[in-house]
Amino acid sequence: MKQQIAAIAIMASIATPALALEAIPDRVPTPSDNPMSSAKIALGKQLFFDPRLSIDGTVSCNSCHNVMASGTDNRPTSVGVNGQRGGRNAPTVWNAAFLSTQFWDGRAATLEDQAKGPPLNPIEMGMPNEQAVVDRLESIPGYRRQFEAIFGSVSYDNMAKAIASYERTLITENSPFDRHMKGDKSAMSDKAIAGMKRFNQIGCSGCHSGVNFAGPALETGTGFFQKFPVYNNPLIAKYKLTDDKGRYEVTRDKADINSWRVPSLRNIATTAPYFHNGSVKTLNEAVRVMAASQLNKQLSDSEIDEIVAFLESLTGEFPEQTMPRLPDIAGSSLVGSIK
Amino acid sequence: MKQQIAAIAIMASIATPALALEAIPDRVPTPSDNPMSSAKIALGKQLFFDPRLSIDGTVSCNSCHNVMASGTDNRPTSVGVNGQRGGRNAPTVWNAAFLSTQFWDGRAATLEDQAKGPPLNPIEMGMPNEQAVVDRLESIPGYRRQFEAIFGSVSYDNMAKAIASYERTLITENSPFDRHMKGDKSAMSDKAIAGMKRFNQIGCSGCHSGVNFAGPALETGTGFFQKFPVYNNPLIAKYKLTDDKGRYEVTRDKADINSWRVPSLRNIATTAPYFHNGSVKTLNEAVRVMAASQLNKQLSDSEIDEIVAFLESLTGEFPEQTMPRLPDIAGSSLVGSIK
Repeated sequence: MKQQIAAIAIMASIATPALALEAIPDRVPTPSDNPMSSAKIALGKQLFFDPRLSIDGTVSCNSCHNVMASGTDNRPTSVGVNGQRGGRNAPTVWNAAFLSTQFWDGRAATLEDQAKGPPLNPIEMGMPNEQAVVDRLESIPGYRRQFEAIFGSVSYDNMAKAIASYERTLITENSPFDRHMKGDKSAMSDKAIAGMKRFNQIGCSGCHSGVNFAGPALETGTGFFQKFPVYNNPLIAKYKLTDDKGRYEVTRDKADINSWRVPSLRNIATTAPYFHNGSVKTLNEAVRVMAASQLNKQLSDSEIDEIVAFLESLTGEFPEQTMPRLPDIAGSSLVGSIK
Repeated sequence: MKQQIAAIAIMASIATPALALEAIPDRVPTPSDNPMSSAKIALGKQLFFDPRLSIDGTVSCNSCHNVMASGTDNRPTSVGVNGQRGGRNAPTVWNAAFLSTQFWDGRAATLEDQAKGPPLNPIEMGMPNEQAVVDRLESIPGYRRQFEAIFGSVSYDNMAKAIASYERTLITENSPFDRHMKGDKSAMSDKAIAGMKRFNQIGCSGCHSGVNFAGPALETGTGFFQKFPVYNNPLIAKYKLTDDKGRYEVTRDKADINSWRVPSLRNIATTAPYFHNGSVKTLNEAVRVMAASQLNKQLSDSEIDEIVAFLESLTGEFPEQTMPRLPDIAGSSLVGSIK
């Protein structure tokens, strides 16, 4: 499988620029065992915004993956229950439906699998186990009714299915880049177009290809991983980019040390700060780091400006959404005994 | 002024039941120096949901006053930046526009004054001073543009005006009680109607009168305060109800020890846990405490059930809202340097 990925990566890097980059598709991939429905999406949206999925009622999915903003919290690393800091930068939930694995280290194959992580993570939402989450959901009549109507019963897996269905609606279309690719030649500025050419020319699109600029289309669960950093340079130590061993922490395979799922570049201008540890505060500096560390290239400020102009053209339209109403339990508090 | 309030309180308590309670009005009171506009409301909604008003980008107004739920966080006391716990239960923002003072101790006359508190409170949003908030807002082009168009400039006062304007849209109409008062005699159950009669009869409506069940209509800034608890009983110590001295902390007038702004009962069934310290987890127990502590009455379980049925009829319709889009700053993070 790894050889296959490497082969695809090489193919992507030698493809013509126009073919390596793709406009956002009209349809989102959906697993056969979790078809979308409006009722399921509505339930998933409530769950996504409900801080009662955390032990003390303070942290929801949206706390770190803020869909009213860029789908992140714009912090280096996130803050979970009891003021605890996570170890990695929260990836955006927008367009995550197009990734073939989830989390920085690809440890979840699907959005469903990903959604099952944070509620039970002691430094994120801190619930003790799946049953505790199910018990809490069952104690809220408005949830119990919806789960029963949609799935037959409340379960942790069904919670994840509902959340994933909502997340599959979080797609940003019509970025200047997408409009350019669909024929609107006035959609991108000349500078952004020059940046796109440079992006292809120097090799960024070798990895940042495909509909999400996160690698080629692969079967769900496959994952498109790359070593980062590859070339040594002073920025690596400055931003502590090798401290976290990345996918190695999942596989314990030495070949995976400092290997990461290639992150999407869609809406990248809105998701600062950058990298797995959120150590780089601006997109210009992130481009400088990437060119030096992955391509062994020292870019000039004007070259970086051009590429940033291109990356800014990847900011899509965030669709208007209604707020969910979180179902209450009349006259009683689920987290009332926790001080 | 205090005598005047006392006189009004006595009038309310001797008024006929039908007159002491009022349906929610069609119009919300608005100060002459802050007229509402759709642009101002839209800006206020963004600010209300924006965690960048807190020092580390984790806490927004909505974190503790969750408008997707009951307008509270359903916790005993709230959690601010760095996992810090506040000392008092977060009051609901829904229908707060009808109160003549804000905060549990009435220390803010208006919604505008209230909105200026939490951003600078070190255990809530933790910004060091007004200028730091203004600087942050000015560094976000989408905010700067809106402030300039609406107010002429960014200022802390203008931020508060925008937030207050949004909050004045947070009104829940058409509760079963409101429909009952407007002539729909099938809106409330027989049990709820019996509970309403008992609520009036035993004296709850002596203080919980008016459109918000929070006292009579008074000039903005006046405030309708009552001592709590009045009558000693074992529940007071159990729930530590006298530890916090209430309005005395504002005025340092001994007459104000354990004096509190009478809280609204609208949507009370959705805002558990109860009281200034959030020490009581269920509405039934809260009614028992109030009857014992304010009216020197030991209610039976069935009497409490009736009153709770009435209180549940005060849950209104939460209007559907669109989510705001929080303006970004392209390619850079405002909180990116804070770990």
